This record gives sequence, structure tokens and C-alpha cells, in this order.
Amino acid sequence: MRFLTFLLTLLLLNAVVAQEPIRGFSEEAATVQRALEAGYDSALSAEEMDGWMQRLSARPHHAGSVATEEHAEFLSELMESWGYDVTVEEYDILLPTPKIRELELTAPTTFTATLTEMPVDGDPSTLQYDDLLAPYNAFSIDGEVEGELVFVNYGVPADYDMLERYGIDVAGKIVIVKYGQSWRGIKPKLAAENGAIGTIIYSDPADDGYAAGDVYPDGAFKNETAVQRGSVMDMPLYPGDILTPGVGATGNVDRLEIQDAPTLTKIPVLPISYRDALPLLSAIGGTVVPEEWRGALPITYHLGPGPARARLKLEFNWDRITIYDVIARLEGSDYPDEWVIRGNHYDAWNHGAADPISGLVAMLAEAKSVAALANAGQRPARTIVYAAWDSEEQGLIGSTEWVEHHAAELDRHAVAYINTDGNARGFINIAGSHTLERFFNQIARDVVDPQTGVSLADRRRARMLVSGDETQRQEVAERDDLRIAALGSGSDYSPFLQHLGIASVHLSFSGEGPGGSYHTLYDTYEHYTSFRDPGLVYSDALARVAGRATLRLANARILPFEFTGFTDTIELYLSELEELADEMRTETARVNALIDDGIYDIALDPTKPLGPPKAESPVPYFNFAPLSNSLQLLQNAAASFEHALANGDVRENELAELNAFLYSSERLLTREAGLEGRPWYRHHIYAPGFYTGYGVKTIPGVRESIEQRSFDAVDSQIELAASVLGDMAERIEMAAGYLDP
Amino acid sequence: MRFLTFLLTLLLLNAVVAQEPIRGFSEEAATVQRALEAGYDSALSAEEMDGWMQRLSARPHHAGSVATEEHAEFLSELMESWGYDVTVEEYDILLPTPKIRELELTAPTTFTATLTEMPVDGDPSTLQYDDLLAPYNAFSIDGEVEGELVFVNYGVPADYDMLERYGIDVAGKIVIVKYGQSWRGIKPKLAAENGAIGTIIYSDPADDGYAAGDVYPDGAFKNETAVQRGSVMDMPLYPGDILTPGVGATGNVDRLEIQDAPTLTKIPVLPISYRDALPLLSAIGGTVVPEEWRGALPITYHLGPGPARARLKLEFNWDRITIYDVIARLEGSDYPDEWVIRGNHYDAWNHGAADPISGLVAMLAEAKSVAALANAGQRPARTIVYAAWDSEEQGLIGSTEWVEHHAAELDRHAVAYINTDGNARGFINIAGSHTLERFFNQIARDVVDPQTGVSLADRRRARMLVSGDETQRQEVAERDDLRIAALGSGSDYSPFLQHLGIASVHLSFSGEGPGGSYHTLYDTYEHYTSFRDPGLVYSDALARVAGRATLRLANARILPFEFTGFTDTIELYLSELEELADEMRTETARVNALIDDGIYDIALDPTKPLGPPKAESPVPYFNFAPLSNSLQLLQNAAASFEHALANGDVRENELAELNAFLYSSERLLTREAGLEGRPWYRHHIYAPGFYTGYGVKTIPGVRESIEQRSFDAVDSQIELAASVLGDMAERIEMAAGYLDP
Repeated sequence: MRFLTFLLTLLLLNAVVAQEPIRGFSEEAATVQRALEAGYDSALSAEEMDGWMQRLSARPHHAGSVATEEHAEFLSELMESWGYDVTVEEYDILLPTPKIRELELTAPTTFTATLTEMPVDGDPSTLQYDDLLAPYNAFSIDGEVEGELVFVNYGVPADYDMLERYGIDVAGKIVIVKYGQSWRGIKPKLAAENGAIGTIIYSDPADDGYAAGDVYPDGAFKNETAVQRGSVMDMPLYPGDILTPGVGATGNVDRLEIQDAPTLTKIPVLPISYRDALPLLSAIGGTVVPEEWRGALPITYHLGPGPARARLKLEFNWDRITIYDVIARLEGSDYPDEWVIRGNHYDAWNHGAADPISGLVAMLAEAKSVAALANAGQRPARTIVYAAWDSEEQGLIGSTEWVEHHAAELDRHAVAYINTDGNARGFINIAGSHTLERFFNQIARDVVDPQTGVSLADRRRARMLVSGDETQRQEVAERDDLRIAALGSGSDYSPFLQHLGIASVHLSFSGEGPGGSYHTLYDTYEHYTSFRDPGLVYSDALARVAGRATLRLANARILPFEFTGFTDTIELYLSELEELADEMRTETARVNALIDDGIYDIALDPTKPLGPPKAESPVPYFNFAPLSNSLQLLQNAAASFEHALANGDVRENELAELNAFLYSSERLLTREAGLEGRPWYRHHIYAPGFYTGYGVKTIPGVRESIEQRSFDAVDSQIELAASVLGDMAERIEMAAGYLDP
Repeated sequence: MRFLTFLLTLLLLNAVVAQEPIRGFSEEAATVQRALEAGYDSALSAEEMDGWMQRLSARPHHAGSVATEEHAEFLSELMESWGYDVTVEEYDILLPTPKIRELELTAPTTFTATLTEMPVDGDPSTLQYDDLLAPYNAFSIDGEVEGELVFVNYGVPADYDMLERYGIDVAGKIVIVKYGQSWRGIKPKLAAENGAIGTIIYSDPADDGYAAGDVYPDGAFKNETAVQRGSVMDMPLYPGDILTPGVGATGNVDRLEIQDAPTLTKIPVLPISYRDALPLLSAIGGTVVPEEWRGALPITYHLGPGPARARLKLEFNWDRITIYDVIARLEGSDYPDEWVIRGNHYDAWNHGAADPISGLVAMLAEAKSVAALANAGQRPARTIVYAAWDSEEQGLIGSTEWVEHHAAELDRHAVAYINTDGNARGFINIAGSHTLERFFNQIARDVVDPQTGVSLADRRRARMLVSGDETQRQEVAERDDLRIAALGSGSDYSPFLQHLGIASVHLSFSGEGPGGSYHTLYDTYEHYTSFRDPGLVYSDALARVAGRATLRLANARILPFEFTGFTDTIELYLSELEELADEMRTETARVNALIDDGIYDIALDPTKPLGPPKAESPVPYFNFAPLSNSLQLLQNAAASFEHALANGDVRENELAELNAFLYSSERLLTREAGLEGRPWYRHHIYAPGFYTGYGVKTIPGVRESIEQRSFDAVDSQIELAASVLGDMAERIEMAAGYLDP
């Protein structure tokens, strides 16, 4: 009975799916497009993707390695063979590699960290480690430091507030910090801001090790020797080559002196395994950590400082290297000056089967199928640019340099940027510009999940219904479209979206293919096909999603940007900001009153070091009216545009102008001056958090001013955000004006 | 400035404190009583308590041991020397002690559990283990079983529901289960109900071991050899001697055959240390446990079943032994037939410094000071009975047998029962009959916290403001009295309150003296004075609280029962029940719809064993009106009584009758027939949970019918609860009638 209902639901859903129009296409054109997409799908081959993955993940291939140069050649030959116009664009960037890495416990006992990952039985790739860069954090400064250890949990701002309550100052100390909760680069940044002299980062088994699940090779999770490499440059300031902010790192541009690069860390930092962390953490004394700080090593975690002391010595080769972005162009038949850009990096910290090859092979399959269609006479109407980026791992360097280098052209021609990166079995994740939310929801309804046979949208909705919180369940019930997430940072969309204001979307599947191999020796073909996506079934699904997006963006007569969903999300962000301010105001007043009344002094254990929190300045009321006013304008404009689109059409001679108005609307969300203190980030709706790193801050000028208690700045930040949204509303009204009823 | 405010607050508070009248006393009498209490306090000596603790915790002294017999003698001589009329009442009970304990891992590797706790450096008491019973669970049946292991988390009902979703059946298997979340006796009970053949219980270091804090002797928590002993009799059915339910186990009463005793476990059960658990848990394979099930051993936890197999063999000496309750009586000067009963057990699983000596020494100090006052001419008006109970640890046996034995007298004479047991540094906990809530709140406002100098009530309120949730903070803001907790089970108040309906209160301090020693070799004087309450400062505070309670109950002209607070709490319970039903109804409907619509089939990972939950019968609407009506009667009655008390007085010749009406009002909350399926438990407002053990279920007939989805029974249970509350309301109105304006 239940199965029958299930089947019936499926049938009904499929029937509905088949009838849905495609945004930007007439009914007729939609029929043609769907036939094209069927052809597109049929040329995709998971087997071929598997072959590419085997080849591309056979050896470690970090930026600057021999393998990477070979990969660039292989990729450009492949793309060229399919009919693309390929250029390999070279940039000359600074890329530190490890020279000396020493970490010792010097008191109360001694121990020398191994800093080495061990090959494992059953995975021959792990024996291929000659080219592998030893575990390190790129853009740590050189240095030798010795001092007492302090355990700082995840090393986020709240952790330092808590340490202050314990009377613990990290000044002059080396902090040991867990991976997780913030982007890794935030950890040494905050440690240095608090006066620490060195940072040791490790993966606690509670988060990524035996506590989370079986460890490699028995399971997906980190074994005791695994170390997460990764960049620690201050990416929330600017990504890309640290010597050439804002300009492409071609041969002859002005460069900063290394020591003047503001995105270098201020103190040395090294990542280690939990095997190496154990003796260090065991030796730390002092107060037992708060319950929420505990990890899963078989010890009592203490805060320190000391008696454990460590010596950390790091030296790097500060070499300038050449990196290679592979750019493959397929000129559009009708609108060659409108570019749909599609990218995935190909460099890896390691063998990179998951990160980034699982996404790259989907892009290759897509590019091959799109080219085949073109070769068979179904050339896309707009120009498609496929980009395989180099040196993403060190700080989105390949993509950032290319975007900075080609900024003027991109500003004119770029319709949208679609990014992928690592992938895994599971549920579709769509994140990016909300003006493309409806567009991607249509695709998620059109593509079928390979495991369950329902649409990707339905599977994601089912998961939200089963595992989501009240808010998510309500959203599923009340909203036709899945709300897409906003983008912070962490992959190559950042320069497109946040520096140039090109509408961007990042696509991936996840949730059923556990990680653990991330940036370790173990991100191999064997790991990937055992645990993350056996058979590359979801690389195939990713190619279906991203390929549809590319082809629909390329072929839609009127570009499929949509503004009511965007406006709905802006409304949500505005209400979040108002709630944030209200909650902070109430909570600050509450806690300050408790402090003033001596309630903490009465409540806290007088024999323990934990003291009251420090009193905070009260939270004033802010003038959110400008944002509310802009929101109202947006609501009207979005509705007008939808109405005009449903009831009118654009004259052929104004089509290009309308489309340019549409695709450049995202540019209006940026301001030339950028965000306060970090001008590279120009987008005023989406930015990576200054103290979270990858994590997004929406309407960042306002949100971060409130969160960081820069209350004096809030009202002016509200005005800035309101002004970009007002410009957007005006633009949408103008676009509606092109549509004659 | 802040400190000044703090000082001023203190001064103001103390000024207020000094002026508050005492419930049940005229203004004049209150002045006399406060002077008496000052005298009472001044005779208390923490040093003397320390001496008694050293003596009474020098050796293990479980029921039936030589040390216990000596303790009974010591206690009765002491009390006699102070002027009490002492009897030692003997009961003849069944008490199994361990004969054979064998636990082996038999596959896939072998390991023999040590089942032994090791002495530690720095604690000479831990070398005194000759008389110590080896770690075991009393009232496990004998048996030898061999089978595959299944890890069942805490072994509560929700855990078995989750196992069912994983397709795991424990039938024919041995379960290994963590201590915590439910009373230990529930674990083998539920395991057996689910078909398991044996139960192994261990303390996971996440809950009580190195993860929680430093381990003994460096800290308070369980070291790797520590094992929690404890009774596993089915106490939610009835406590006390398993052979003589409902009657005192004197020499000549009828006894059940051992094999017919329903409170014996159905399967063998043994507690072990985490050192012994590690090889067993490491050997379990199968699916990785859900995240919330993880412990802190350095392994990946798996559910099983197998490949780990274990053999468990247990045999016990099924001996009848004599136990000794020490009963010390001080006849009241004015109302000798009204008894205030005050108890604490003296038997221990071990040395018992914390459990129960820390509470017992407070009771001894109290008894000594009360006797000294009596000897100096300030004899209490009512009779005070001090009871030192034997064999609490095995199932409240000493107290239960005494209560059953003396039920008729107690029913007539018992005004109230005040219990204490283990104590520690920290915050006052008051739990019990809500008709005494206001009375105990006055005491909590009158006694000063020894660490901070504010009243116990203010310190508790401060803690709720600092660490409490929204509800608790609101309660502090809106309610003059701290809401006292309801009593489930776990100490000797149970027979008084739940079998006979004698208003009872359990008192303790906790929150700043961590456990870990509980029921292990390490519950020693050294542990207690190092970690739980150095200087026995809080045993002294406990004596101040309990002594005031005893003396005020003994001397109040009109007994200090109060019904508006009681009514307010009944209102809360009623709203909780209504919310429980509503939430279950909504949640059941929601989950059933997801199951019916196949949403789980879409959302869950098709490669993993976790399936959808099973559909549940829908939750009907219940008729809560009878409870609402009784609540209304109670509200009126409670208000009348308070009004009458404020504006009138009782005639001297009716005083005894009024007081009897008041103190026996709690009896009206019981019904002779008891709770459905467990007639020993007669109280219809407070009972230990049938599937939680110690944890209280308020209005248990209704609450457990809803929770256990016996929906047909709910309306009739509502009527029963409404009827006892209606009787209570009538009684209160009658009591008010004695007070002439």
C-alpha cells in the first residue's frame, strides 16, 4: 500500500516535471531545449569520468608540481580535441612550500612530532607520495617559537571570550586549536590578535576521526596519522596571489614585498595529526576545559597554560612559480558577447580524487557533451567558457588572478559563473545568487536522483522534512522553491561574485559520502570510490545539473534571472538583522544587569577560576527604515517584472540590451569602494565572514558591524546596503519596461 | 562600585530576612523560635562531623557486614547518650552477595574482564577493601549466558526504538549499556523485555571518567578501574525486601519464594569498569552508532550484533540477613502524638563517605543539638524521631520495612518525613511535597550560604539566573518562592511519601562537588574531603536547613502546610500534560504522514540500514476537564485557607484536629488501590517512572498512560487524579473552616 502511494507519487511528479515550462524559454523553445538536454544526458558517461578520475588522481598534483603542468596539457588537449578554443593562461605567483617543519614538546616531558602520514594497506595510491607536499599551512610565516601551550578549542572569538573568563591570556603562548567551526585561516589570525606566538592546528577525533566513524582504510574518516593541509592566508581580506591584490599576477605588474603582504599570517602555524596532538594535549595542565570544548582523545582536556611547553620551527621556500589556468571557449551562435562561465579547479593538495577531481570530471563530461551537441549543429546561442583553475588550494589563486586580469571584459560580457569543486554522494546543494534561485529550482525539479528516482528537489525536500528543524520544515511547506544558500568563500566563485558582482552559483552533492580524506594523503581514487561516491554516480548527476544550467543560460532568449525569490530572501536577511540586534540588545542588558547586581559573584564557584563575563556596551536601536524602504521598492519591482514577463515580450532589437540589464543587475549589489576595511570584497549582500572565513555573512556591512559591536557604523552600513538594493530595484523596474504587453 | 552594590544588596537582603515571619508561628513565637535556632546553630560543629565521618567511613559497611552491626551499635549509643529513647529494629531480609562473577570476550578475540578496582596512591582507605563486596548488581538473577554483544547506548526505550530502525533485534543477545540517563535497574528490565539474555553495564568516560574531568586520585572522576555497584531490583514495582512486599520483614511474616519475587531481574546483569568495557566495545562490529550514542573511549562505537561474543556467568549467595534500623525518639512536650520524622541511611556499598555519611553526620549533629536544647529545657513541642536506616543501597530496604511494619501508627501520627543522604558542596536542592514548598523557602531564605554569605535561596536564584534556561529565569523573576522539585525515587523518602502519603522532603546540596566515587571503592574520606566538600562546610549547612525544618515542624502551633504553591505546581503539571498530549499528537501525525507519503524512503540513505520509524497509533483528544475542575476547586480552597489563616485563628481545643487535618492532607493524594499495575505506589501525584526508575513522573497515572501510548486508559486516569485533588480541595476548605475570623 505504502509502496503504491510512493509509486503513484513518483508518476504524478514525473508528469508534472515534464510539463513545467523553462524560465527564459517559450513553450516551443522549451520543447527543443528539453530534447537537447536529453541528448546532452545521453552522452554523459560515468565510466569515462571514472577513467579521467583515475588518471587525474594517480599522483599528487599541487600547483607548481610537474603533475600539474602535465594536467594542464592533458586538459587543454582534451578540450581542444572536442572543438574548444583553448588557451592556457599563465600567472606568476608566490607559493611557499615547506622547508623546515619541527615541533617538539619540551616540557614537562619531551616528544617530537612525527608530522608524517603513513601509507595504508589496500590503497596503493597512498604509496605514491613522492610529489606530495608534507603537511603544512600555506602562507604561514617562517619562524621559531617556544612557549607554554594553551588549548583554545576551535579558536573562534567566543573561545577567547571564554578563556578571558578563566583568566587565561594567550599572549606569549603557543595555542593548540582544533580544526572545525571556522575556516582554518581564522585560527592563527585570532590567535595572533590575542598575542599568541604560534598556532598548532589538529583534527580532533571527535570531529574527524574514530569518534565520527571508522577510520581509513576501514572507513572514510581520518586515521591517526592524517593531517589536513590548507591555506591560512587572510582570505577574508583578499584571496589570490598575496603580492598582487586586485590585479592579475602577470609577469610585469607591480608586486608587494613578501613581508608587506597583509594576508600572510602574523605567527607561524602548523597542522598536525591527532596522534601527534595527543602527547601535547596530555601534557597540558591547569583547569579542565568547559564541557563543550572536549574532544575525543582518551584524556582529560585542560586549558593550560603549561606546564606543557612546545617549540615550533617553520621555514618555507618562498618561491615564485607559474600556474596554469586552462580556458576553453565555445563561441555562441547568436550572442557571442554574452559569456556563460563554468569552472572547477584541477590542482589539489594531494591526489585530489574528491577535491577537486570529482567535480572536475563532471565538468569535463559536460564540456565534452556540449561540444558534441555543437559539433552536431546544436551550438549554444551564447558563448560558453570552461575554466580549469590552478592553485585554488592555496587561496583561489588561479581563478582570482584570471578574474582580476580580465576584469574589464568580464564586467561587460559575463552572464553568470557556475562553479563546482569536490562532490560526493547525497543531496543537491545549490548556493549563490538568489536571482538564479528559481532557475536552479527548475533544474533540481528536472533532474532525477540516481538512487531514489525522485527529482533532486524532492529528495532535498524529503530530507528537510525528515531531518530539518521547524524552520526548514515550514519552509518546505510554504515555499515552492528550495531556498538556496548564500555564498561565503572556499572555492573559485569568490572573485566572480564578490569582487566583480557576476551572478554565481556553486553546485555540489553531499551528505552521504563522508569526508575525512580532505587535504590528506588519503584523498585517493580508492578512498573516493569506496566511500564518497562509488561508481561516480553523483559526478554524473552533477554533470546533469551543471550542464543544464550552462545550456539553459546559454540558450534562453530572455535570461532567466528572477527577483521575487531574491526579494523574499532579502526580506529574510533583514528580519534576521533586526532579530540579531534585538536579541543582542536584550541579552547584553540581561547579562550586564547580572554583572552589575553581583549575581555572577554569587552564582559562580568561588573555588574555581571561572569569572563573570565582561560587561558589554549596550546595544542601541538602529534605523532599519532605509532597508525596509528598499525592500518595498524591490517587492514592487520584482512583481512588476514578473507581471511584465508573463504578459509581454521584448522587441528583438532590444533583447541584447534587456539581457545585459538583467545579467549585470548583480553588479549593482557591489560598490567600487568595497566593504569597510577590505575593499577587494565589493559585494554588499554576500561576503565571507571576517572572523568565520568560509562562512557567509549576508548584508555583511550591517551584520558584521552589529556582531562586532561597532554600533556607530551600523546606520551608515544600513544606508549603503539600502542604496545598492535601491539601485537593484530601479534596474528591475527598467528591465520590466522593456517588456511590452 | 559593583562591589558596593553587591554589599548593599547583601545588607538589604539580611535586613529583610531577619524580619520575615515564620509560617505557623505568631510573631512572638517566631522571635522565640529564631533565638532557639541561633542556639541550635551554635552547637553544630563541622569538626565533630568530620570526626564522625572519619570513624563511620573507615571501612566498607554494607548491610549484613560486621561493620554495619558495629555502626548500629555506635549510633544507638551516641543517640542514647544524648538523651534519645533508642530502639534498634531488626528485619530479616533477603540480600544476595556475589559468589561467582565471570565475564569473557569469547570472539573474535578473547579477553577476560578483571572485574577489580585498584587501590590508589594517596588514599589509604582504598587499601581497606577486605570487607568490600566485589562490584555487582544486587538482585540480578544467577545465570550463565553466552551470545553476541549489542551496544544499546543507555538502554532506555528510545534506544530500542532506534535499534529497531537499524533492524537490530537484541533477542538472544547480551547487551552492553552505559550507566546514566535512567536508573540502572531499568537497563536489564528493558533489555529483558526486548529478549536479551544478559546485560553488562559500564560507566563510559564521557559521562563519568576522564572526559568529564581528572580521574581519581588526581580528580574526582572515575579512574579506569572504578565500577559503580548498585541494586537492580525492579524498584518501580516496589522497593524493600523482595520477599515481603507491603509488610514489614519481621521474623514470622509470609514470604515469597525467591524465584517468585517479581522485582528480581529476568536476566543476569553485571557492572564493569570502562577498562573492562574497552576490549568488548572495540570488538563489536556492524553499523557505526548514531552521533548521540558515542562515548569517549578511543574507538569507533558500533551497534553490533557481534562479531563480539561474550560469556557472562553470575552466581550469588542468596542469604537471609538481619538488618538494623536505629530509631531514636524524643517525645514532644505538647503534642507527643504528632511525629516529625527525620532520616538518613547509614549503610553503604563501600566506605560511603559521600553516600551516605556526608548526610548522616549532618543528621547526627542535628540530633545532638536538638537533644542539647531539650536537655536545657527547650524540648520540642512535637515528638521527633531520628532514623538511621540500614540497607538503603539494596533497595530502600531498611526504611521500607520499617514503614510497612509501622504503617498504621505512621498513618495516624506522622506529620512529615525529612530525608537526607549524600551531600556535596554547592547549591541547596529541595524536593518533595509541594504543600511544604513555602515552608522550605522560608528556611532557604534564613540560612546563609557558607561560601558567599548570601541566603541559600538567593544563591540558588543567582545560579538559575546565570545558568538557567528561559523558563527558569522567568520563574525567578515572577515567583517569590523557588519551585521545589517533585520526588521520584532513589532514597528513603519513597515509602513515606509514595506508599503512605506522608508529606516528605529530600534535602541536599550539590553542584560544586563532583561525583565519580559513587558506589565505587573510591567513596572514601580522602575523596570526599578533597573534592566534594573540604571541611564538611556543607554538611554543616545541611544540618542548619534540616534542623530548622525539624524544629519548626515540631514547634509550629499551626502546622506550616501551604496550598497556593501546591496548587500552582498542579496547574503547571496539568499544562505539561496537555502540552505532552498536544505535542505527541502533532508529532505522531507529522511522522505518520511522512511514513505514509514515503518521504523517509526518499530521504534516507538507501545504502545504509537505518529505516523509517514505525508508524504509531494517532493520539486522540483527552478529557482534561476533570483535572481543570479540581484545579479550580484547589485554587479556591487554597485561597480561602490563606485568607482564613491571615484573618483568623483556631480554637485551642480544635488545634490538634486542625493539625491532623493538615498533616494528613497528603494521605488524600494516595489511593488504597495504588497505581495501575504497581499497587505499592499509592501516591497519585508523585511516583518514580516505570521506565525511568529514579526519575519522577508527576500525576503518574495520566502521564505514563500518555507516554506509554495507553490512550484508552488516559481519561479514567484523569478522573482518578482529579478525584484525589478534589478530596484535597475539600480538605483544605474544611481546614479553613477551623479558623475563626
